Amino acid sequence: MNNKVIWTKKDLLGLEYLSREEIELILYTAESFKEVTTRQIKKVPALRGKTVVNLFYEPSTRTRTSFELAAKRLSADVINMQVESSSVRKGETLIDTGRNIEALKIDIIVVRHDCSGAPNILARAVKSSVVNAGDGWHEHPTQALLDIFTLKSKIGRTEGLNVSIIGDIAHSRVARSNIWGLTKLGAKVTVCAPDTLIPDGIEKMGVKVTTDLDEALEEADAINVLRMQLERDSRNAFPSRLEYFKRYGITKERLKKCKKEIVVMHPGPINRGVEISSEIADGPNSVILEQVTNGIAVRMAVLYLVANPKSAL
Amino acid sequence: MNNKVIWTKKDLLGLEYLSREEIELILYTAESFKEVTTRQIKKVPALRGKTVVNLFYEPSTRTRTSFELAAKRLSADVINMQVESSSVRKGETLIDTGRNIEALKIDIIVVRHDCSGAPNILARAVKSSVVNAGDGWHEHPTQALLDIFTLKSKIGRTEGLNVSIIGDIAHSRVARSNIWGLTKLGAKVTVCAPDTLIPDGIEKMGVKVTTDLDEALEEADAINVLRMQLERDSRNAFPSRLEYFKRYGITKERLKKCKKEIVVMHPGPINRGVEISSEIADGPNSVILEQVTNGIAVRMAVLYLVANPKSAL
Amino acid sequence: MNNKVIWTKKDLLGLEYLSREEIELILYTAESFKEVTTRQIKKVPALRGKTVVNLFYEPSTRTRTSFELAAKRLSADVINMQVESSSVRKGETLIDTGRNIEALKIDIIVVRHDCSGAPNILARAVKSSVVNAGDGWHEHPTQALLDIFTLKSKIGRTEGLNVSIIGDIAHSRVARSNIWGLTKLGAKVTVCAPDTLIPDGIEKMGVKVTTDLDEALEEADAINVLRMQLERDSRNAFPSRLEYFKRYGITKERLKKCKKEIVVMHPGPINRGVEISSEIADGPNSVILEQVTNGIAVRMAVLYLVANPKSAL
Repeated sequence: MNNKVIWTKKDLLGLEYLSREEIELILYTAESFKEVTTRQIKKVPALRGKTVVNLFYEPSTRTRTSFELAAKRLSADVINMQVESSSVRKGETLIDTGRNIEALKIDIIVVRHDCSGAPNILARAVKSSVVNAGDGWHEHPTQALLDIFTLKSKIGRTEGLNVSIIGDIAHSRVARSNIWGLTKLGAKVTVCAPDTLIPDGIEKMGVKVTTDLDEALEEADAINVLRMQLERDSRNAFPSRLEYFKRYGITKERLKKCKKEIVVMHPGPINRGVEISSEIADGPNSVILEQVTNGIAVRMAVLYLVANPKSAL
Repeated sequence: MNNKVIWTKKDLLGLEYLSREEIELILYTAESFKEVTTRQIKKVPALRGKTVVNLFYEPSTRTRTSFELAAKRLSADVINMQVESSSVRKGETLIDTGRNIEALKIDIIVVRHDCSGAPNILARAVKSSVVNAGDGWHEHPTQALLDIFTLKSKIGRTEGLNVSIIGDIAHSRVARSNIWGLTKLGAKVTVCAPDTLIPDGIEKMGVKVTTDLDEALEEADAINVLRMQLERDSRNAFPSRLEYFKRYGITKERLKKCKKEIVVMHPGPINRGVEISSEIADGPNSVILEQVTNGIAVRMAVLYLVANPKSAL
Repeated sequence: MNNKVIWTKKDLLGLEYLSREEIELILYTAESFKEVTTRQIKKVPALRGKTVVNLFYEPSTRTRTSFELAAKRLSADVINMQVESSSVRKGETLIDTGRNIEALKIDIIVVRHDCSGAPNILARAVKSSVVNAGDGWHEHPTQALLDIFTLKSKIGRTEGLNVSIIGDIAHSRVARSNIWGLTKLGAKVTVCAPDTLIPDGIEKMGVKVTTDLDEALEEADAINVLRMQLERDSRNAFPSRLEYFKRYGITKERLKKCKKEIVVMHPGPINRGVEISSEIADGPNSVILEQVTNGIAVRMAVLYLVANPKSAL
């Protein structure tokens, strides 16, 4: 770790905008916070007297809870703002909402929004730090950071690793953030999905594309299995559950042909028997629950860094 | 109080599963916490750095608030998870949700669920402590504990007391938990309701059964008046409000024939003029609001004990 | 500031019920708390170990958040109770809900209710302090206090100031609280709206009434532009958006004829292009975001004072 790297950004909007060194600084910072979460008293005073707002325009208990815990373990105060009951309903624009939150002297706004780019707009409008907790099909940077953190913890490096991302690439901010992060850290990324779920021009991001799962698995050191968001299929682009499981489901039989130590990741929540079998999800190659644990440490690191720009650990 | 009793359980799932000594240990611990809630600064550091999740699959402001306050007065961090906006909606199973919460390094999960036995399933699946905040028609142990705590505070003992539980026994987890707890502590329990609201075989729990309110009141040292959950009557098993009040409503006239010091309890929220008249609910025999106050102390005791198994006060 | 004024009230129900001296004491106390919100660590231990409940019968992210932040910056514990998921749905009365909250040993209940006078009823029923966060068309005292605080910060005094309140006076608790507060502090208040939105007898409150915007603007040192609550117009009493904007919208052209230093306030959230143009809302005369910032300090002062009756700073 190059100790001379210094965090200077007020926001975390996406891995597209970070250098390799900045990504590594986040991961390095997360390691020291991970130790905190194993203590009896899981709390440090790093952000005492600071306030974090979770501004969620889409419901998400998992991500909101992870950020809320990360903030509380740093001793910050946390305010949850759900759109359902907020003034957004009364027609206020995102920028007005942001400026009002800024006027409340909030240090960090964690925002989830169904429009790609909303966090970028917000970040330009306010002096508070903005952390992207998922925007449209654009980016979900903390999810990719926790995936990469878990990968490094398991394998010890990212350089030269073969990582395959399997599933609905077209509608996945998780896939996009992982591609940005992994390629910057020297991994070789393959994306694999049915034709209808591969976005045009994805290979320009520096990834290999295939519709053949066996090809995607053959050389893989790790796979990241995406959730089939069946509840969102308005275009009927998805195959049926059974058909998908047959062609793209990760099963014991499938993994037999892979490297023995292959790392299996999934951002959750899993659809058992759709994109992954229970045997694999709960099996020895799966790091799915470690990802959840690491999410807290990574988010603590992100909150800490954006609240303390120009600081290096 | 036998000081040699030691709390060893990681969970509180129901009073069915506790010994008399364990129930007494909770009540004894609650007494010392009750003193805390009378201070100017109502806070002790007993659970500082611990995290409590309120995982509620049924809405309940009262019970959720009581647990949230109990946890905060022990200095724990509290995260509220309501099902409406959670990943449960996305089809995740209870066990997967539990394992994810466990992976977040949560110390205690307080769970309310509409299925009987759900907390038991959860407790087996995770290392975090699980506290049942009401499951189906099964148990609501902290409600019964606070009822019994209030009874003991008022009368000084439970041994040999005559306690009548009046109302919809069939659909009441409060009734079941009270029966388990009271009979273990040596009280004599009578249940009283219209025929349609008495479950088959209830007498096997060691209670006397009657449909005659006067009989239930005659010898009673205390009564626990259950809420008519009119909003849940899908089977049309309930009599009309007026009819119910006439036959089973607790009124001044009815209490005239009772012991003068009879203690009147109700788990709330009360339906004035349905199961109880305002005169009685607000009268000198009523301990309904003391029950609410004692709920905090009892829940502080439960959270403290499950977070510190093998500890005795 | 007369240092001999002492706060003696357990509640803040409306500016109608306060003396000029009491209003000034709140504003004076707010000034010292405003300094806290500019610190790196925005927290003082003034209410440590106290509990504040936000009991909201109407959704309001803005006001709820402002009170939640104020309480947390005073180190109080905060519990949010939304009616949607509460026992209110089960038919419990406001007074029973209040008594239950009191039994939980809550120090302060911040209540928003759609019925005028609900906080008054609640305050009589419980020993906990009650702070009105907006009741029907009656009062919204902390909003008026923050408006007046902002005005004093900008202009240095209230005595003799001309303040015009423009918009839907009939349905505005903000207008009513401002009228009570401003007239007590010696300001001259004009209200201006279309005929249908001026309540009968308003001039008895000591204000000048006009339907002519130019007249309302002519002498004004400050204006308070009310939000057109288009979502609430069940009576069709409102003109169309465009028509309203044309006759009553605050625009650059309109302000040209005003005093150059005129202060433009708005309680938010603003309807850009309905009651106010973006140019003015974001322009140099606008103090809209300062109002938001000052709201925290004013609410900290109110929470502090009601929790410490008989105390003077």
